[in-house]
Amino acid sequence: MRVPQTWLGVAPDDPFGPATLPYGVFSPADGGRPRVGVAVGEWVLDLAAAAHALDAPFAEAADAPVLNPLMARGPQTWRAVRSTLTAWLSDPAYEEALRPHLAQRSGVRLHLPFEVGDYVDFYSSEHHAANLGRILRPGQPPLTPNWKHLPIGYHGRSGTVVVSGTEIVRPMGQRKPPSAERPEVGPSARLDVEAEVGFVVGAPAPRGGRVPVSAFAEHVFGVFLVNDWSARDLQAWENVPLGPFLGKSFATSVSPWVVPLEALEDARVAPPERDPEPQEYLRDAAGEPWGLDLRLEVRLNGHTVSRPPFSAMYWTPAQQLAHLTVNGASLRTGDIYASGTVSGPGPGEQGSLIELSFNGAEPLELPGGGTRGFLEDGDTVSISASAPGPGGAVIGFGEVVGRVLPAQG
Amino acid sequence: MRVPQTWLGVAPDDPFGPATLPYGVFSPADGGRPRVGVAVGEWVLDLAAAAHALDAPFAEAADAPVLNPLMARGPQTWRAVRSTLTAWLSDPAYEEALRPHLAQRSGVRLHLPFEVGDYVDFYSSEHHAANLGRILRPGQPPLTPNWKHLPIGYHGRSGTVVVSGTEIVRPMGQRKPPSAERPEVGPSARLDVEAEVGFVVGAPAPRGGRVPVSAFAEHVFGVFLVNDWSARDLQAWENVPLGPFLGKSFATSVSPWVVPLEALEDARVAPPERDPEPQEYLRDAAGEPWGLDLRLEVRLNGHTVSRPPFSAMYWTPAQQLAHLTVNGASLRTGDIYASGTVSGPGPGEQGSLIELSFNGAEPLELPGGGTRGFLEDGDTVSISASAPGPGGAVIGFGEVVGRVLPAQG
Repeated sequence: MRVPQTWLGVAPDDPFGPATLPYGVFSPADGGRPRVGVAVGEWVLDLAAAAHALDAPFAEAADAPVLNPLMARGPQTWRAVRSTLTAWLSDPAYEEALRPHLAQRSGVRLHLPFEVGDYVDFYSSEHHAANLGRILRPGQPPLTPNWKHLPIGYHGRSGTVVVSGTEIVRPMGQRKPPSAERPEVGPSARLDVEAEVGFVVGAPAPRGGRVPVSAFAEHVFGVFLVNDWSARDLQAWENVPLGPFLGKSFATSVSPWVVPLEALEDARVAPPERDPEPQEYLRDAAGEPWGLDLRLEVRLNGHTVSRPPFSAMYWTPAQQLAHLTVNGASLRTGDIYASGTVSGPGPGEQGSLIELSFNGAEPLELPGGGTRGFLEDGDTVSISASAPGPGGAVIGFGEVVGRVLPAQG
Repeated sequence: MRVPQTWLGVAPDDPFGPATLPYGVFSPADGGRPRVGVAVGEWVLDLAAAAHALDAPFAEAADAPVLNPLMARGPQTWRAVRSTLTAWLSDPAYEEALRPHLAQRSGVRLHLPFEVGDYVDFYSSEHHAANLGRILRPGQPPLTPNWKHLPIGYHGRSGTVVVSGTEIVRPMGQRKPPSAERPEVGPSARLDVEAEVGFVVGAPAPRGGRVPVSAFAEHVFGVFLVNDWSARDLQAWENVPLGPFLGKSFATSVSPWVVPLEALEDARVAPPERDPEPQEYLRDAAGEPWGLDLRLEVRLNGHTVSRPPFSAMYWTPAQQLAHLTVNGASLRTGDIYASGTVSGPGPGEQGSLIELSFNGAEPLELPGGGTRGFLEDGDTVSISASAPGPGGAVIGFGEVVGRVLPAQG
């Protein structure tokens, strides 16, 4: 596929060029209400206003303060909107009608793009799971016996999913240092990040309507970035026997721009070889695997500390969705799920500080001076990503950023 | 407090008498839209219609297909609505105005009473946790080291919370019998119930707004019954290291009537002694503990198989809420949490079949013939409860019922 050109003069290598066209929710600089927008270069298009002006059939679905109504329309509408946008932005005949509905991205405020239904967090990087096994269960096999048979996951807290830029207050809670006799209550001393990739469900599925791997793109609307903030000390104390709870539930940050799945056709790659062969309901659709060549970058106070490769993930998002629904669980528009921490096999490819600093034992040296085992108050973490697009284009995901504030006593 | 009388002639010992006045959502026999109702005896009052007719200030909040807008108004409104209802139903002067807005409960259809935000499931019965420890981790201490320091909990799936009466399709999934070399996929062979008590948040709390034990009644609107259906074989295989997922997420049934917390003043009891003393943020408010003398009853195909006493719960719902928010997690109107399986110390007081049948090893004899280790297709489970009310009145919770349908292959 050729990269379309636009009358906006967006550079061909702009990560938000016409091959990306991500969706988000913004309010204008002058403070109007939140509305659906499409990013292109340095601009954001007010989608509902443009659709009303040009009598597009999706005007009503776009006229909302979240993406949910548009996402709920399903894949035919998603494709139609995207091809309409491409036509609008490539044909100068539309410039006059559209110009009034374009705003500078630098001037708008971005909001949580969707109303979240359920939030599931997976654990699908073999390298991450094995690293954590080695750190937390030394002397035992790094992966649990089930790990290569199913994508391990759990439900997180939907109500504390926040948009990039939201400040993250260091959580309080119980933790029990190995040396202590009793647990104590205080601010987490081991606050960490997890660089992940998120997926949002557009088209729902009824209870009992198991979604096969091959129907992934009929249900998932798009892709975004996730920082699954983690308080390792809270998590270690509470985790057995029912899994993560308060160590995760204080905040999960997501990037404001949702990249439509359609923009990622050129980023599809074969996932790593799976051994043993997965159960039938988890097998990749023939010739159409959903490995994705997304290249993440994690920055701490502006310094790149990791470049996790999403292509190394053991379980694909299509397998995750098939697993999530194999028991008959329904899907709602706005349900999201995240990949789990993305970690590659090489040095500097781990998506969490607990891995990068070997549980604090080997603190990271920051180029600007100082070291970090875990996050300190005032630290800013940003996660960004890009993927290959058609004809050499770059598909950008923007970033998810958060700054750590001191605990509130 | 005296039990108020009503011009409806409801018997003083009716579990839905004027001391209960639970809230639900119903649609009339003739098929109108879902609306908020209040149960009294064999009747249900259309709350918004009555409020409009009598110019009550809460008419707008009640005029919705879920309880959320009314719950969001906060405790002052909850108290005002309840005292207004008591006045209306006790003073014959209101009969003429209210009669047109009363329907026979037997004729209406009941709906999920709230839009669920997040769903957290706790694990707060010491007897249940110890029973499961003995069954699942024989030879080890029955309770994990953290159990008496904090109310263990995890997030469940909000999107599969269903109202009583919804049929439960036996879930499919992966399980690995100890004798098998590889996991297999199929219908759960160990489908179980968990009799629990649920709490719904009315008044929200912002991120960082930790809710102290003493503020429980300022946030929680009411109480209902929960059947947390559990596929033990799916759960056993997936559970380590991140806790329950598909073994629980296929369905959670809730009773249709939400009993306001105010109706439970006479049911408040001291919880069991806690040793060691809980951390400060988990200590009972002085002189005002939130142990609750709810008496549950579990029936399988009409036969009572268990009578779990809620008063035996180690952690109270006030402690659960304080724990849930100690890390700064926000609360939204419609967030729900469940107590965990209610099990008492005595025989026939366990709230799950895995306990009652000792993991299937000692199947229950059903009076009508047959035995059960776990649920069979066609089985119907109902959980009901009552609590002491003022002046000898009974506070009823109605019931949560579900029938098991065969797996869909």
